[in-house]
Amino acid sequence: MKLSISVVGTGRMGSALARALLRLGYRTTVWNRTKQKAEPLAALGATVAGSVLEAVNAAEIIIVNVSDYQASAVLRDDAVASAIRGKLIVELTSGTPHGACEAAEWFAAHGASYLDGAIMATPDFIGTDAGTILISGPRQAFDANEEMFRALGGKVQHIGEEPGRANALDSALLALMWGALFGTLHAIAVCQAEEIDLGELGRQWTAIAPVIDGLVADLIKRTDAGRFASDDETLSSISALRRIPASPGADGGAQDRPLCGGRLRRDLPTGDCSWPPT
Amino acid sequence: MKLSISVVGTGRMGSALARALLRLGYRTTVWNRTKQKAEPLAALGATVAGSVLEAVNAAEIIIVNVSDYQASAVLRDDAVASAIRGKLIVELTSGTPHGACEAAEWFAAHGASYLDGAIMATPDFIGTDAGTILISGPRQAFDANEEMFRALGGKVQHIGEEPGRANALDSALLALMWGALFGTLHAIAVCQAEEIDLGELGRQWTAIAPVIDGLVADLIKRTDAGRFASDDETLSSISALRRIPASPGADGGAQDRPLCGGRLRRDLPTGDCSWPPT
Repeated sequence: MKLSISVVGTGRMGSALARALLRLGYRTTVWNRTKQKAEPLAALGATVAGSVLEAVNAAEIIIVNVSDYQASAVLRDDAVASAIRGKLIVELTSGTPHGACEAAEWFAAHGASYLDGAIMATPDFIGTDAGTILISGPRQAFDANEEMFRALGGKVQHIGEEPGRANALDSALLALMWGALFGTLHAIAVCQAEEIDLGELGRQWTAIAPVIDGLVADLIKRTDAGRFASDDETLSSISALRRIPASPGADGGAQDRPLCGGRLRRDLPTGDCSWPPT
Repeated sequence: MKLSISVVGTGRMGSALARALLRLGYRTTVWNRTKQKAEPLAALGATVAGSVLEAVNAAEIIIVNVSDYQASAVLRDDAVASAIRGKLIVELTSGTPHGACEAAEWFAAHGASYLDGAIMATPDFIGTDAGTILISGPRQAFDANEEMFRALGGKVQHIGEEPGRANALDSALLALMWGALFGTLHAIAVCQAEEIDLGELGRQWTAIAPVIDGLVADLIKRTDAGRFASDDETLSSISALRRIPASPGADGGAQDRPLCGGRLRRDLPTGDCSWPPT
């Protein structure tokens, strides 16, 4: 007979986790602060708990996926504390390494096992082969429940004993992701100011994405190796960076000077520039 | 008989351009401010010009690839101006849309054709199928010399009549690239502070790179379509962003608090966090 699992927090991500468990036949109990958000899962076979304590009592494993560690502290309530002994908590809420360490200490002190994870995916990847979740904490607790973790995603993996490790790597990977997304927003702003069709930006980005990916991989590798000497580029070519101005503001000046600088031109010497030349 | 081409500026990129032309049998003349940098190309068959004027006189097409548009103004010298009539200038130096427009006007006024380009590649891609160069300016000048452009890279392409267009798109794509690279540097700093092996960062980045690429593509597409409603994520999940702190500074505090927050912890409530719990 398969394990009983409770999912605490049924936002979009928590609901995806519960659905993946239900699909593979786990007896699944769900709890959410706003109960209506949990109710659609009942139609798929989940039991909707009336309280956190009820959800804890119903399962051997409690998966937590709420908005932050403050919200997940509902599990560290006095009323719940005595029910938690002997269970496994899997904390998948986004948080810091420090928060994971604190939680791990609290659960250890109350006789529960604790794994902390970071979901490196949007909800639509949960339960698929590409679903990646990084898990840290006692390896043996991960290995003993590997089948359940596989239900959540094909790339769920244990990355270290220290409870904060998954959140630390999550922070690093999020920094990388946000860098790419902020760069994209900046590129979009430049194109809009210069009246370049975003379809063209998309096509050209697709073409150079492998070059960018190669640079990212190289940057990680050469930092790891402590190899900072120049290969193909000189530092002076980096001066191109100076040409990236602050994000275009709200002034509409670009409209009447298409492609002759538009808002990009703000930082440059002024001068007449109409095209074609008159 | 193939065209005569001069390459003005033989840094790493300019030398790669000259080598690609020499490989395909173009009569190639090179000039560089510091002559020694041009001389290795003589062994490959290039003529090393003693002056810019000599380089201009020797060729029908003058390709310019120097550090910036100020440097490329050597071509707009009075002594050179009369020699330029009837020739095609291909400006591949990094610059702004405004700079391209100014140059286009000057060359038009002096009876020369002008194309402005942006090289979306490192020198090792030049002359290969993957070599991408964006060219803007009169289409007919591009089409008439397509064979020569193909010699420089398989993905050399004309993207518009307006001379500033290539530089504008270059700025957008560079913003995207630098976003990804700064994000990577931040990720590296987090890993170093948290004592996470950079090999692990590289492996995990490789795993999630398709997810990030999907988000970049989606961000461009949904902005283009004006579609900003939420699909799978709620805005509150973006609060994860708040967890990305300022780049770790130079303090060595991470060493004695591995994975319990390290420098990441600076912005968080203080508290003891040792692992395993004592």
